[in-house]
Amino acid sequence: MTNKRGFASDNNSGVHPEIMKAIIEANEGHTVAYGDDIYTERAKQKLYEYFGDDIDIYFVFIGTAANVLGLNAATKSWNSVICAETSHINVDECGAPEKFNGFKLLSVETPDGKLTIDLIRKHMHGFGFEHHSQPKIISITQATELGTVYTLNEIKVLTEFARQNNMYVHMDGARIANAAVTLGLEFREFTKDAGVDILSFGGTKNGMMYGEAILFLNKKLGEDFKYIRKQGMQLASKMRFISTQFEKYLSDNLWYKNAKHSNKMAQLLAEKIREIPQIKITQKVEANGVFAIVPSREIIEELKKEYFFYDWDESGKEVRWMASFDTQEEDILNFIKLVKSKF
Amino acid sequence: MTNKRGFASDNNSGVHPEIMKAIIEANEGHTVAYGDDIYTERAKQKLYEYFGDDIDIYFVFIGTAANVLGLNAATKSWNSVICAETSHINVDECGAPEKFNGFKLLSVETPDGKLTIDLIRKHMHGFGFEHHSQPKIISITQATELGTVYTLNEIKVLTEFARQNNMYVHMDGARIANAAVTLGLEFREFTKDAGVDILSFGGTKNGMMYGEAILFLNKKLGEDFKYIRKQGMQLASKMRFISTQFEKYLSDNLWYKNAKHSNKMAQLLAEKIREIPQIKITQKVEANGVFAIVPSREIIEELKKEYFFYDWDESGKEVRWMASFDTQEEDILNFIKLVKSKF
Amino acid sequence: MTNKRGFASDNNSGVHPEIMKAIIEANEGHTVAYGDDIYTERAKQKLYEYFGDDIDIYFVFIGTAANVLGLNAATKSWNSVICAETSHINVDECGAPEKFNGFKLLSVETPDGKLTIDLIRKHMHGFGFEHHSQPKIISITQATELGTVYTLNEIKVLTEFARQNNMYVHMDGARIANAAVTLGLEFREFTKDAGVDILSFGGTKNGMMYGEAILFLNKKLGEDFKYIRKQGMQLASKMRFISTQFEKYLSDNLWYKNAKHSNKMAQLLAEKIREIPQIKITQKVEANGVFAIVPSREIIEELKKEYFFYDWDESGKEVRWMASFDTQEEDILNFIKLVKSKF
Amino acid sequence: MTNKRGFASDNNSGVHPEIMKAIIEANEGHTVAYGDDIYTERAKQKLYEYFGDDIDIYFVFIGTAANVLGLNAATKSWNSVICAETSHINVDECGAPEKFNGFKLLSVETPDGKLTIDLIRKHMHGFGFEHHSQPKIISITQATELGTVYTLNEIKVLTEFARQNNMYVHMDGARIANAAVTLGLEFREFTKDAGVDILSFGGTKNGMMYGEAILFLNKKLGEDFKYIRKQGMQLASKMRFISTQFEKYLSDNLWYKNAKHSNKMAQLLAEKIREIPQIKITQKVEANGVFAIVPSREIIEELKKEYFFYDWDESGKEVRWMASFDTQEEDILNFIKLVKSKF
Repeated sequence: MTNKRGFASDNNSGVHPEIMKAIIEANEGHTVAYGDDIYTERAKQKLYEYFGDDIDIYFVFIGTAANVLGLNAATKSWNSVICAETSHINVDECGAPEKFNGFKLLSVETPDGKLTIDLIRKHMHGFGFEHHSQPKIISITQATELGTVYTLNEIKVLTEFARQNNMYVHMDGARIANAAVTLGLEFREFTKDAGVDILSFGGTKNGMMYGEAILFLNKKLGEDFKYIRKQGMQLASKMRFISTQFEKYLSDNLWYKNAKHSNKMAQLLAEKIREIPQIKITQKVEANGVFAIVPSREIIEELKKEYFFYDWDESGKEVRWMASFDTQEEDILNFIKLVKSKF
Repeated sequence: MTNKRGFASDNNSGVHPEIMKAIIEANEGHTVAYGDDIYTERAKQKLYEYFGDDIDIYFVFIGTAANVLGLNAATKSWNSVICAETSHINVDECGAPEKFNGFKLLSVETPDGKLTIDLIRKHMHGFGFEHHSQPKIISITQATELGTVYTLNEIKVLTEFARQNNMYVHMDGARIANAAVTLGLEFREFTKDAGVDILSFGGTKNGMMYGEAILFLNKKLGEDFKYIRKQGMQLASKMRFISTQFEKYLSDNLWYKNAKHSNKMAQLLAEKIREIPQIKITQKVEANGVFAIVPSREIIEELKKEYFFYDWDESGKEVRWMASFDTQEEDILNFIKLVKSKF
Repeated sequence: MTNKRGFASDNNSGVHPEIMKAIIEANEGHTVAYGDDIYTERAKQKLYEYFGDDIDIYFVFIGTAANVLGLNAATKSWNSVICAETSHINVDECGAPEKFNGFKLLSVETPDGKLTIDLIRKHMHGFGFEHHSQPKIISITQATELGTVYTLNEIKVLTEFARQNNMYVHMDGARIANAAVTLGLEFREFTKDAGVDILSFGGTKNGMMYGEAILFLNKKLGEDFKYIRKQGMQLASKMRFISTQFEKYLSDNLWYKNAKHSNKMAQLLAEKIREIPQIKITQKVEANGVFAIVPSREIIEELKKEYFFYDWDESGKEVRWMASFDTQEEDILNFIKLVKSKF
Repeated sequence: MTNKRGFASDNNSGVHPEIMKAIIEANEGHTVAYGDDIYTERAKQKLYEYFGDDIDIYFVFIGTAANVLGLNAATKSWNSVICAETSHINVDECGAPEKFNGFKLLSVETPDGKLTIDLIRKHMHGFGFEHHSQPKIISITQATELGTVYTLNEIKVLTEFARQNNMYVHMDGARIANAAVTLGLEFREFTKDAGVDILSFGGTKNGMMYGEAILFLNKKLGEDFKYIRKQGMQLASKMRFISTQFEKYLSDNLWYKNAKHSNKMAQLLAEKIREIPQIKITQKVEANGVFAIVPSREIIEELKKEYFFYDWDESGKEVRWMASFDTQEEDILNFIKLVKSKF
């Protein structure tokens, strides 16, 4: 496969030049390892600016770890976590949440990747009954794995419901920047101010090289987290190279520009796809992904040879096309030309 | 604290310019995520050149993970792992080996960080007795956490002993390059050819940014490791940025030059320290670390203000000084001048 | 609550007099602890008579442990286990399977507690894909938690399907005696001979005091199980008092008589309930349980005061009535009289 | 092997007749399962009488589980537990503490199985340092695995030290009755009143059939324990048969009579052994065990054929002889006669 840009995933793209520049600049002399350094301090300051300084911040290597360890901090092994059946923690982490946390995931089928109180209700029972894992967290993904975005109100309804039931809300924000752009809201408006307790704040899918932040918006939950991170094998020695990325990412609206662009590219792709009547878009395009049913396996395979992407539904004909911060308009136009040539 | 070079740890240093260059060059277009890319392929080829191609290779983020997950592949939770009391897995991983693997660590006091059959013997019992964790792995560190290096023969004696007892040998090679330089041997001579089964092959302490390789020199042990790595939260999405570092690190003897230099700097430091009769060097200087007893806490604290380093023995007066790939002769001479001024 | 017999559960009953007699008789002098005794030997011989001697047998304290540890023997933490949503391992073990085994449970909604290939299929994907827990076991309950019984053919279809997919089949046999009576088959015909690999063989719900057997019908799976049992905190010191129960239970058809009786009592109860048109039986009565919808919460609460039993569906009006080895015909007739008086 | 009484272990003996009688009497009609029954209520009342009613009580099946789950309630996986190298949790539970709790055991060599502050001190460091498992519990065994007994003052010194360091004290009381007899103290005097937080209160080694109690003397530690017990696979369905044993055991001083007798038998055995100059008793005989060095393996093997017992030191010649509640004076005299005949 050549290095040309495809639509496989927003983590197939590389690193934004500004991020790379920050990494290079951080490579200066000696710095205390494990996070007690000036780069980490500055990155935290940036996050405080966005979220307020009454939160607790930890950097880890990847999103899976941010989710798993973040959930660890707020649960016991006899708890359960309610999530969408399509959520990353349920289907893309090879059982890491169960393995590391010992708890139970209770998944819910959803039409669009979004939980609602009505959908959750089937798991809201057995409280106080020792034979039953005790529900403790509602975990949502923003933007969802299906390219949809929770509205502010939808989030608030869930966090209030959680609060009423003595539960917490975790948000997997691997693509939170894309959601923020779509909502037109500040991060804190639809997270901390909306009652979210724990946030996996991602950047790798939006132009960073590696590194993810776990934000305990409910600060007390982060109390002993430094031990959890270390035991979870996620404490970077040369931490400055993660931190400096976050500092840059959160400066000069870089995160915003990148996400805005990939969202826009997804919109363009969707718009063009809609011109092809044989293809059916299956989900609202609210972030940087387009989900569609292509009526022929043969065509799907032919398209993949030129522009790599993934099947969404293994047994069927649904595919996922992801736009990235570096997707170019011509990538889409050329791809569309190719698609059209198959029908 | 300023960014000047100290003697705290070889992971307080930054990234070697050649490694940084490789990272920059890998930042080109889109690449399949999670390791199915050309950079990873090339990095593996490099490792095959060093170790032979009948091994299994996996990249992870950090050394703790390389150790913990590598050990996981060869154990059941009812096994035990014999290690030195000073080993990283025993004292510096916050219980990660026990947490993730469920097994028991059996530690052994050693004078110099090195295991011997005689020292191990106290744990070699209870085989077949279900009340007792079953010893399965001997884990050694090369170079050790005390700056000493196992000779080839010392390693062979241990691997043969392990084989006789139906056990495996794991080597924590966080500083394996320093050991190779000291021994004057190829990597494979004192690892695979010497009977080592699992190797944590490190680079971060010798000029890399992040990333560690787990080498199953005993190939069958790596059979299902891709699942262990993923569930262990160590599968990098933008894998190319780890792989490209390894490719470069293993090219043009970069690893060798770096390690040779830091070893040499440690020798220089030791030589100069020996001129100060009040300070007693406590371990053989065989890699890039110098361990010494400084007779006054006051002096230790004053020195730390100028050149940061760590106490080795919390309650006592033993300190550790580490040289790094970028340590300069003048760093040492200036430091020695300062030390001498205190006596 | 008085000690009178209710319909809450077959574990609310006590110990069959013959079992108690065996316990008393085993209380003679000293016996080697932990299972290397003559009682355990004889109990195993009994099981060999029923299942053939090419199996591996271990006694534990309870059914939850039999399930959890039995599954442990055949899985890695990155595997998944497919089960009915109503299965005991999924809803009644407080997450013990996930906690101890680190794996993922994939549950399936069923109309009657029974898995079928069609129902399972939704989880049969992602093989070889490291992001996905690898399905390894199909776990069925016989008789099911809903009082239904798999036919021999239904079991064979599942075990063949498992074999084709390189998976194993586990059977939770907490009420296997009731199923055997219903099927009119020998235990081995619908377990080992039908391709089941691991069997939790229960007796506590059919007249024993405590103790459960794990049978590795696929013998090699039991290879290292003695360590798993010990580490799983299920190795009894005074093992003889478990073993002697099994020996007696499997002698003189005691298990059969008990199960036949409780099945018959459930049939009688169902028959009488069917005379009350306001109450709707919701599942086939194939073992010793009757599931029914009683149209009024008030009536349910009134009935419970006299004869304790459990709601099945917390939010609704479905209840579960279990017959036991010691249920008397008059218990049922009196209960029915009471029920009828409410309508 | 015949059923005659040997000196292998106090769990090779059977059940005291009074305990058996209680079991038989509890076998009456139906009783709510899982502990919400009158027998359990009465057993708890008995324990409240001994320890005060401001404690939390849970019954489990065995001592290993009492230790492992009791420790679980007061730790996180990143904690460590300090214990004697000879402690049951360290050498006789096949790694169950590490497996279930994920934490680290820090063992200490002792001359007599008893921890002291001086011995512990080597592990009292690294507090607040995330690379290091955080010490949280000191676990002592009373009477110890070496047949010695902590004095009241020795216990108080440890609990006070623990309190000063923000740690808890756990006591493995598998043979607590023997210790109480030796000390001439009420249970609570050397446990709760002496500052012990968690107590594994055993009875199986002193005449019970099965069952162990976990007492949270520091009541808040038991807060969520019902979930831990269930997930730990230790919730008995027919709980009454455990509870009734405890009720009886704690009535009419049965526990005291049994322990007093076995202690006395151990004293007699030790006294007689001291008459044989070739045999050296290696530990103080303060409970019901005698440890001794017999100078010949041949003699040891010959003795074992008649009276089974265990080697203590596999490689050497140290053996352990345990007296039991049912050991008879003639058993000892006959054994001594046999021993003397070998010299």
